[in-house]
Amino acid sequence: MPERILLKLGGSVITDKHADCVVNHDRLGTIARTLAGAPGCDMLIVHGAGSCGHPEAQRYRLDKGVAKGSTDGVYVTNRAVSGLNDAVVLALREAGVPAIGIHPLHAGVANRGRLVSFECRHLERMLGLGMVPVTHGDVVIDLTEGACVVSGDQLVQYFAVALHCRRVGLATDVPGVLDGGGCVVPEITRKTAPALHIGNSSHTDVTGGMKGKIDELLRLADAGIGSDIFHVSRIGDFLRGTDHGGTRIREG
Amino acid sequence: MPERILLKLGGSVITDKHADCVVNHDRLGTIARTLAGAPGCDMLIVHGAGSCGHPEAQRYRLDKGVAKGSTDGVYVTNRAVSGLNDAVVLALREAGVPAIGIHPLHAGVANRGRLVSFECRHLERMLGLGMVPVTHGDVVIDLTEGACVVSGDQLVQYFAVALHCRRVGLATDVPGVLDGGGCVVPEITRKTAPALHIGNSSHTDVTGGMKGKIDELLRLADAGIGSDIFHVSRIGDFLRGTDHGGTRIREG
Repeated sequence: MPERILLKLGGSVITDKHADCVVNHDRLGTIARTLAGAPGCDMLIVHGAGSCGHPEAQRYRLDKGVAKGSTDGVYVTNRAVSGLNDAVVLALREAGVPAIGIHPLHAGVANRGRLVSFECRHLERMLGLGMVPVTHGDVVIDLTEGACVVSGDQLVQYFAVALHCRRVGLATDVPGVLDGGGCVVPEITRKTAPALHIGNSSHTDVTGGMKGKIDELLRLADAGIGSDIFHVSRIGDFLRGTDHGGTRIREG
Repeated sequence: MPERILLKLGGSVITDKHADCVVNHDRLGTIARTLAGAPGCDMLIVHGAGSCGHPEAQRYRLDKGVAKGSTDGVYVTNRAVSGLNDAVVLALREAGVPAIGIHPLHAGVANRGRLVSFECRHLERMLGLGMVPVTHGDVVIDLTEGACVVSGDQLVQYFAVALHCRRVGLATDVPGVLDGGGCVVPEITRKTAPALHIGNSSHTDVTGGMKGKIDELLRLADAGIGSDIFHVSRIGDFLRGTDHGGTRIREG
């Protein structure tokens, strides 16, 4: 069976986070060509929302959930990030990657902000057929709050476990997790995480920025699945298994 | 608890079945205004693919399933009908109906052409929040065949049972099920169905036309849920519970 890889594309990598839903098509094209030329593997892609979804989620206060009759934020936020997903899938397909988009709003159920269910049998079958499912941070129906935002990073954690991924990589717009002095932290574990001094992302992000990302990846490490954070230009290195100059999150 | 209604919009009602994915926006606008003015109820909408999806499903021979490396038909067919779904949802929202699209490819799993699983808890919660989920005939991943087409009529049968709908209505481009003489058959049951003489739809339809529709509705009647087939101009009558001049499918 081919190696199964989960690749996360950060929202800030594929959109201009300072603008209102501006997709970075050049960057998408570069990523797509890298993936098309990569060694054969089963691959699932998760991407963040960046400026397509975060502003909408904030505007409609989705962090407070939704109530009967006040659900416009669900539609508007999902539309924004679904449009980005369409662009990601199209760029991949144009490069020859058999990508297929999956919207978490359609398939997932959350409770108190955490996914409690997401159909995976079709994703498993898609992977077996050589397809590359591409899913994304999204608004999801929440059994308690009405709706909530489920970040790409939460999805990474969920799918890596549910789909038994061997390797998890997060492509970001920084070379890895940076310490207070701007240097890449080569490795993070549960033990070393509390001593880390990292800055919060200056971008609009309703899902916790780098700290939220590390929290999700430490949950994943607890489950025995290590992950790697690296600059988007190093995706090829990650896929080949060579040094990517970034941060490794490991159990311990 | 408000009455729960499932309304099916036939593909030939909302597209021009003789053209290649031409959405009938005028018709959609009329339907949307009718629904916006209807008495309060929980409502789920299912629509057919019409000329947005059927031609693609035929071109890629999705009736034969898909094999590893030959999955383009899944993407292309889903894209076509998803675009139609976007148009239906937008028309409804513009009229003030809080519609939200749900793509079966994202949420469902089939086996040998029949749905075996479809997440419904989020649909149930959406209905409780006053939202109107709008789903559609689609290509769905099939555990045996790779992929298959699940018709809007199959979805009607699935959701009417899973979501405990009280009333099921099918809006079509004919006044009801017509007999050989062109007259509306007022009622159909398991007992009377074999003696029916109905013509096959002359339109492109990979999912069985009127005969397929009646088969699905008889399965539903077997489960104790009656349904009504009527002309799209009579949706208001159906919603109000007044005579719609069409066909009733009943248990018996």
